[in-house]
Amino acid sequence: MAKAVTFYFDFGSPTSYLAWTQLPRIAEETGATIDWRPVLLGGIFKATGNRSPVEIPAKGAYMLRDMQRFAARYGVPFTMNPHFPVNTLTLMRAAVGVQLRHPERFLRFIEAVYKALWVEAKDIGDPAVAAGVIRSAGLDPGEVMALTNHPEIKEKLRAETDAAVGRGLFGAPTMFVGDEMFWGQDRLDFVRDALKDAA
Amino acid sequence: MAKAVTFYFDFGSPTSYLAWTQLPRIAEETGATIDWRPVLLGGIFKATGNRSPVEIPAKGAYMLRDMQRFAARYGVPFTMNPHFPVNTLTLMRAAVGVQLRHPERFLRFIEAVYKALWVEAKDIGDPAVAAGVIRSAGLDPGEVMALTNHPEIKEKLRAETDAAVGRGLFGAPTMFVGDEMFWGQDRLDFVRDALKDAA
Repeated sequence: MAKAVTFYFDFGSPTSYLAWTQLPRIAEETGATIDWRPVLLGGIFKATGNRSPVEIPAKGAYMLRDMQRFAARYGVPFTMNPHFPVNTLTLMRAAVGVQLRHPERFLRFIEAVYKALWVEAKDIGDPAVAAGVIRSAGLDPGEVMALTNHPEIKEKLRAETDAAVGRGLFGAPTMFVGDEMFWGQDRLDFVRDALKDAA
Repeated sequence: MAKAVTFYFDFGSPTSYLAWTQLPRIAEETGATIDWRPVLLGGIFKATGNRSPVEIPAKGAYMLRDMQRFAARYGVPFTMNPHFPVNTLTLMRAAVGVQLRHPERFLRFIEAVYKALWVEAKDIGDPAVAAGVIRSAGLDPGEVMALTNHPEIKEKLRAETDAAVGRGLFGAPTMFVGDEMFWGQDRLDFVRDALKDAA
């Protein structure tokens, strides 16, 4: 069995964006595959009682500075989205749908959404903006939006989110290497070490 | 003016203990002094609406594993205190009192309390245990306990805690290099970089 890192993410989490900018390189360096798991962070918060750091104003202000520092360290662009917090229910259902029905376009879709949200700071809640982002990933917006209303897709996102909570998740991004859980883009160095040590 | 790092800490915070194990070496390496600021974390939580991570059970379980990983990385002992959460009001008043009246024993006092709590996992709420810890720092337990009831000492801890909140603190440990704030023992590498860059 090849070594793997499981990546639980929600597009609405800017720290998940930062992790996404780094994880493919870490996986490549360590010869690992990435097991991508779209989950609904709002559902995880509801199930665990955890809250977004921005609900504490002082913490929200600090987090912004902290994310800017990491973006500078990583050498990646980062723009705080003025439409934050983003309701990601439809987006995460879309991710599940694209992963199931168009797996060959899944990584392009992730990239298109993350860049729209955290580089271009777009208002992805605007249907025209969302359609443009989906189209830029080589997908048909009408078809992807229809997928987000499909009972199987809705249920899969719900089941993945519940399973994540059952595994101990309380926030995003969360990574697993084997049974070892790592929370936060600031734990990627531990993820790298765990992947290096993995058989 | 010599370069300095301001260290806001509460004895009851295990991540503040971890930061304390590393900060003197970082200060030495970068030629900086440490400006020690005892504050009451409970007061900071109350003022900002922030909460201890352990109030979310899944987060508390993860934090323990996370702190063990950092202790291993730092090569320092760490034992979760079974009496956690610790009411640190008297201890933090004692820190303020010792810092004012016995500055030459202040660092020994910090070391004695941190080791009692996070290495030996003692029940420091037990007056006999507290007296032993104070004595081990070369201080008189009766005198230090009397200091904790002194209005000037009580007011100084309150004022320092309020000032910390005014400066943006929402948790501990928190460090400042100039006006740049860093929260968490996991940001010590950024503190080191800031000290290296400081004039």
